Amino acid sequence: MSTDPAFPTVPEPDEEVRQQARERQAQLTKPVGSLGRLEELGTWVAARQGVCPPRPFARPRAVVFAGDHGIAQHGVSAYPAEVTGQMVRNFLDGGAAVNVLADNAGATVRVVDLAVAVDTSEAISTHKVRRSSGVIDREDALTEDEVDAAIRAGRTIADEEIDSGADLLVAGDMGIGNTTPAAVLIALLTGTEPVAVVGRGTGIDDNTWMRKTATIRDALRRARRVIDDPVALLRTSAGADIAALTGFLAQAAVRRTPVLLDGVVVGAAALIAEELAPGARQWWLAGHRSAEPGGPLVLEHLDLTAVLDLDMRLGEGSGALTALPLLTAAVRLLGEMATFAEAGVSGS
Amino acid sequence: MSTDPAFPTVPEPDEEVRQQARERQAQLTKPVGSLGRLEELGTWVAARQGVCPPRPFARPRAVVFAGDHGIAQHGVSAYPAEVTGQMVRNFLDGGAAVNVLADNAGATVRVVDLAVAVDTSEAISTHKVRRSSGVIDREDALTEDEVDAAIRAGRTIADEEIDSGADLLVAGDMGIGNTTPAAVLIALLTGTEPVAVVGRGTGIDDNTWMRKTATIRDALRRARRVIDDPVALLRTSAGADIAALTGFLAQAAVRRTPVLLDGVVVGAAALIAEELAPGARQWWLAGHRSAEPGGPLVLEHLDLTAVLDLDMRLGEGSGALTALPLLTAAVRLLGEMATFAEAGVSGS
Repeated sequence: MSTDPAFPTVPEPDEEVRQQARERQAQLTKPVGSLGRLEELGTWVAARQGVCPPRPFARPRAVVFAGDHGIAQHGVSAYPAEVTGQMVRNFLDGGAAVNVLADNAGATVRVVDLAVAVDTSEAISTHKVRRSSGVIDREDALTEDEVDAAIRAGRTIADEEIDSGADLLVAGDMGIGNTTPAAVLIALLTGTEPVAVVGRGTGIDDNTWMRKTATIRDALRRARRVIDDPVALLRTSAGADIAALTGFLAQAAVRRTPVLLDGVVVGAAALIAEELAPGARQWWLAGHRSAEPGGPLVLEHLDLTAVLDLDMRLGEGSGALTALPLLTAAVRLLGEMATFAEAGVSGS
Repeated sequence: MSTDPAFPTVPEPDEEVRQQARERQAQLTKPVGSLGRLEELGTWVAARQGVCPPRPFARPRAVVFAGDHGIAQHGVSAYPAEVTGQMVRNFLDGGAAVNVLADNAGATVRVVDLAVAVDTSEAISTHKVRRSSGVIDREDALTEDEVDAAIRAGRTIADEEIDSGADLLVAGDMGIGNTTPAAVLIALLTGTEPVAVVGRGTGIDDNTWMRKTATIRDALRRARRVIDDPVALLRTSAGADIAALTGFLAQAAVRRTPVLLDGVVVGAAALIAEELAPGARQWWLAGHRSAEPGGPLVLEHLDLTAVLDLDMRLGEGSGALTALPLLTAAVRLLGEMATFAEAGVSGS
């Protein structure tokens, strides 16, 4: 059942097309640089698609990785664990933030149950690895077979979506307690003290925050033993949802498909995916700067600059999907604006 | 020909509906506050529409106020003055950034020629006040009749749009040299030194920047004499495009219609509109924080917080239209997300 998690070399974005895109930006009817970040984003997409002007996204696709976490039994969240399964239902019914934001951005949503504690609908359970995860301050989150299966599931999900035409992926998460393993991974890989990485998650009070911090401190001790082994780290401290996210993010890069990252849970997976598949970060854009303290730490570590900073901390892919209309705008500007020559406008 | 520019009292947003919206935000299937700024924006719109949940915008409408500026003859821009008329043509042909960004955001664009130096098409010239403006470091921008006509034009344009169903207005500008009068007004009304308010506009070099700063310093001397009279200030130092923008922004507030502000030129008009119609600022949202130094000064003075900060400095309404999909998202979230009760999700 065990599989080799090694990823092929991550391809480089197309430098020649990037240069073409920069030259085209200078010919469009606007002062050079006056569209700021939108110019950079358009150029970024062109270099990933390998074509200038870039194509509007034909099938932007959000994938929400759902899983429960054993650590939730320590009371690290403001919500009971049953909410994970209830929210998965809400996603399927179209009532959650991710649904509205995806529709607003012209994207569709797929929910995948990797480790929800209860049974969810069969359609989303084909990649289910287990129910919940080990209690990571005293036991491993997953077995060796489970972590392999989860990473493989994430890779397969990326392949499925890309093979179905997805040309932009949005990574999202759902799971009560999932910011606790995320905080452990972020603290470990960015060399940050637990107190500086522990956020309010769903909106916890002071006592819960102290409990969460103590849990993270204990879980960090276990994680530190395997700091140099990304797969062992996922096994020890993550969970099937985060392990699958890691495989998904790395595989998207291998497949030359850009990804919009969301908040701290996706960010934690991104840190490990970059270890598993060095250079994968070149295929990712940070949709937003999360209000959770771990968010900025991830961005700094991966040298990514967030598009938005709106004090969001929901997860689900919500921050990434809020940024998607801007990425679409950037692509359309580079493709649709007239050049000075076409419009008969005098240049500077 | 002179008219009374006095505006009726600006109505207050609906405090009761604002409270309803906040309560509804707390019932939606997400931790309270986890959508950050998007929650505030949804609530903001509800209180302006006077209904919760707020209605999706039926007819968001961008209006670009075009005009030339006599001061351009001092060489304060990287572009020749003929570009104003050429860009107006580009807007009508759909090739400019404002066209692409409006379409991307589901908005339509109207261009109005208030003072372009050349003849433009008749369809956009019905409100034309004059050609270009006086050279503001040594003469008034407009006559008394012209400033009255321009303010009236802006009010009429707001009325026309609102009467045609526009339920969100986006204010934009086009005019080579227009950041110079904008800088004069911003420096004067925010009490800022010229050197701290003069930006690179379309991308000027050091010599042009020094010329622009000297021009602004001289124009400020003339403006300071009428600092307490907003209409006289428009006459002395603005131009028909900026005066019309001022009337437009104030009238939108009188008509209870929210406006997305753009960059420094719209911002300068907003400073004066708030003087003419105190409280109008409650009906405005700052789409973005301009990369021009005057942008943040306007926001601070009007106590507005920008939605985006993307290093943009194009004008045309481009920053505001880039923010519009986020405002739409915020409205839809508040209207379309399921509540905890509807979705059967356990609350915290």
